[in-house]
Amino acid sequence: MINYEDILSAKDRIDGYIIHTPLLRSPALDELLGCKVYLKAENLQHTGSFKLRGATNRLLILSNIEMKKGVVCASSGNHAQGVACAAQRLGIEATIVMPENCNKTKLEGVRRFGARTLLEGTMSSQREAKALQLVKEGKVLVHPYDDDFVRAGQGTIGIEILDDQPDMDIIVVPVGGGGLISGVSVAVKSIKPGVKVIGIEPSGASRYGISREMNRPVKLDHVDTIADGTRTDRANERSFELIEKYVDKLVSVTDQSIRLAMKECVSKGKIVAEPSSVMGIAAGIDKKLAVKKTDRVCFVITGGNNDLQLLSDVIMGGK
Amino acid sequence: MINYEDILSAKDRIDGYIIHTPLLRSPALDELLGCKVYLKAENLQHTGSFKLRGATNRLLILSNIEMKKGVVCASSGNHAQGVACAAQRLGIEATIVMPENCNKTKLEGVRRFGARTLLEGTMSSQREAKALQLVKEGKVLVHPYDDDFVRAGQGTIGIEILDDQPDMDIIVVPVGGGGLISGVSVAVKSIKPGVKVIGIEPSGASRYGISREMNRPVKLDHVDTIADGTRTDRANERSFELIEKYVDKLVSVTDQSIRLAMKECVSKGKIVAEPSSVMGIAAGIDKKLAVKKTDRVCFVITGGNNDLQLLSDVIMGGK
Repeated sequence: MINYEDILSAKDRIDGYIIHTPLLRSPALDELLGCKVYLKAENLQHTGSFKLRGATNRLLILSNIEMKKGVVCASSGNHAQGVACAAQRLGIEATIVMPENCNKTKLEGVRRFGARTLLEGTMSSQREAKALQLVKEGKVLVHPYDDDFVRAGQGTIGIEILDDQPDMDIIVVPVGGGGLISGVSVAVKSIKPGVKVIGIEPSGASRYGISREMNRPVKLDHVDTIADGTRTDRANERSFELIEKYVDKLVSVTDQSIRLAMKECVSKGKIVAEPSSVMGIAAGIDKKLAVKKTDRVCFVITGGNNDLQLLSDVIMGGK
Repeated sequence: MINYEDILSAKDRIDGYIIHTPLLRSPALDELLGCKVYLKAENLQHTGSFKLRGATNRLLILSNIEMKKGVVCASSGNHAQGVACAAQRLGIEATIVMPENCNKTKLEGVRRFGARTLLEGTMSSQREAKALQLVKEGKVLVHPYDDDFVRAGQGTIGIEILDDQPDMDIIVVPVGGGGLISGVSVAVKSIKPGVKVIGIEPSGASRYGISREMNRPVKLDHVDTIADGTRTDRANERSFELIEKYVDKLVSVTDQSIRLAMKECVSKGKIVAEPSSVMGIAAGIDKKLAVKKTDRVCFVITGGNNDLQLLSDVIMGGK
């Protein structure tokens, strides 16, 4: 289990490799969301997503022997780009297993960083099996979320938010595998326990919401969501434990709301944000956050690596 | 003629009405543009464009009698929204004359602020004639650029850029009517004369570039550009004087390059920027800026009030 010190160490370790992304005050979205809106713009992070943080923190603690073996990861795309980018900078060979239906922008991103790519199935369990096979052949696994160094790396976002705006009332975090919200909630509750942390899942993949109801980490039979960064079919045991301890509320949103939120981000927010990253905005539009007008609410915009065809369709209000 | 003190006074006057917009460091665009890229994100300004600065500075110096008469302006849209927003906050009645082919996003923006709108012709001279008619009937004109309080208001952007990054080497500014570049170049050259200021015009409306060649302010027979914020058909005499004195270089870009720049802003920059505001990025892509890899170059992103149909088309690479 990670603690605040792990996240502080991660912050020191990855400093210089990642951007302290801007916390944008976005009054143009206040009326729509019924609160004072702040956007933690991880779409402006190197690689276009927060995933670089955890990947960099993980790779920086590899031994020389591990570095020579090379790393492998299974990812829908943003963790893939994070690992590929961090590996390239550190001179480590990286192999990335991505889903066959992966977002083309993310695939190109990975290849740009010189990593080898393999396309395998569409479910997270399929690509994870392929990655494990390569681990048996000698590679070092960089798991997208079930790794304490990855969790701690993602958690640095929580420190940055409260450094930039100590009076934040609520932080709204998209939930996929659970690494981001684990890290952020540990950081936030350690610095300022009064700040509320709300996790948002797609209704077609609400692993942690269902797990909370069932009081145990569940595996879903299938996942179905436009939010390609969150297509994980099961709740991770360690992340579940942290979420149960630190996350005040879990909410789920439909694909329809996610589409609307993407469009509002473009037309009012003037930012490019991918489906997974606007789930908090979607929850706000649907009045599921129980916020007040005077509340300072930070929405973590996890990434901006949009499939351009989908973005174009969403802007025009089509399917 | 405005001077630095006018811009400093404007800064004090409009403080609290406008956002000190973030200066975004955008390494994702470095390779494309061949320099260290900074974006002055006026698309994140209230009303989605920088025009609020000049309009607010102008309205704040109206006499009580003038305030009661109400104001009128002729604008393709962003100045219109700036005037409408500032007028609403100050309790002043505003009438806005816009072109018949105006961008619908901007028209809706103006109406949202409770201003009366009139659609008149497609050329700037046509809407200006209509506005002057209303001035004869008693309204006070708020000119989009030929006004020293407007120039000084826009110039506050120059101060903010150098406050946030004193070591900037080059500032690239889109040129429409000339108010923005007049104000910014006066500010920048007063604070740090060594910083280069480059103005960018659409090739279908390069008023100031042609005027520089002809050594006198010219009027164009027609304008033809996708950059709807820059469809002004003549060089303004006073702005021309300031541009000749303070602007190091004027460059023009084609609509095709502007489209590509919009797409790159979405796919790499992760921001939503309208055609007029990406002209500097277009010039950079076309290698017209003569920048070095080590140069810190600030591109002023003037606004993000895109026509969504056009944005969608551009993202997909169509017409």
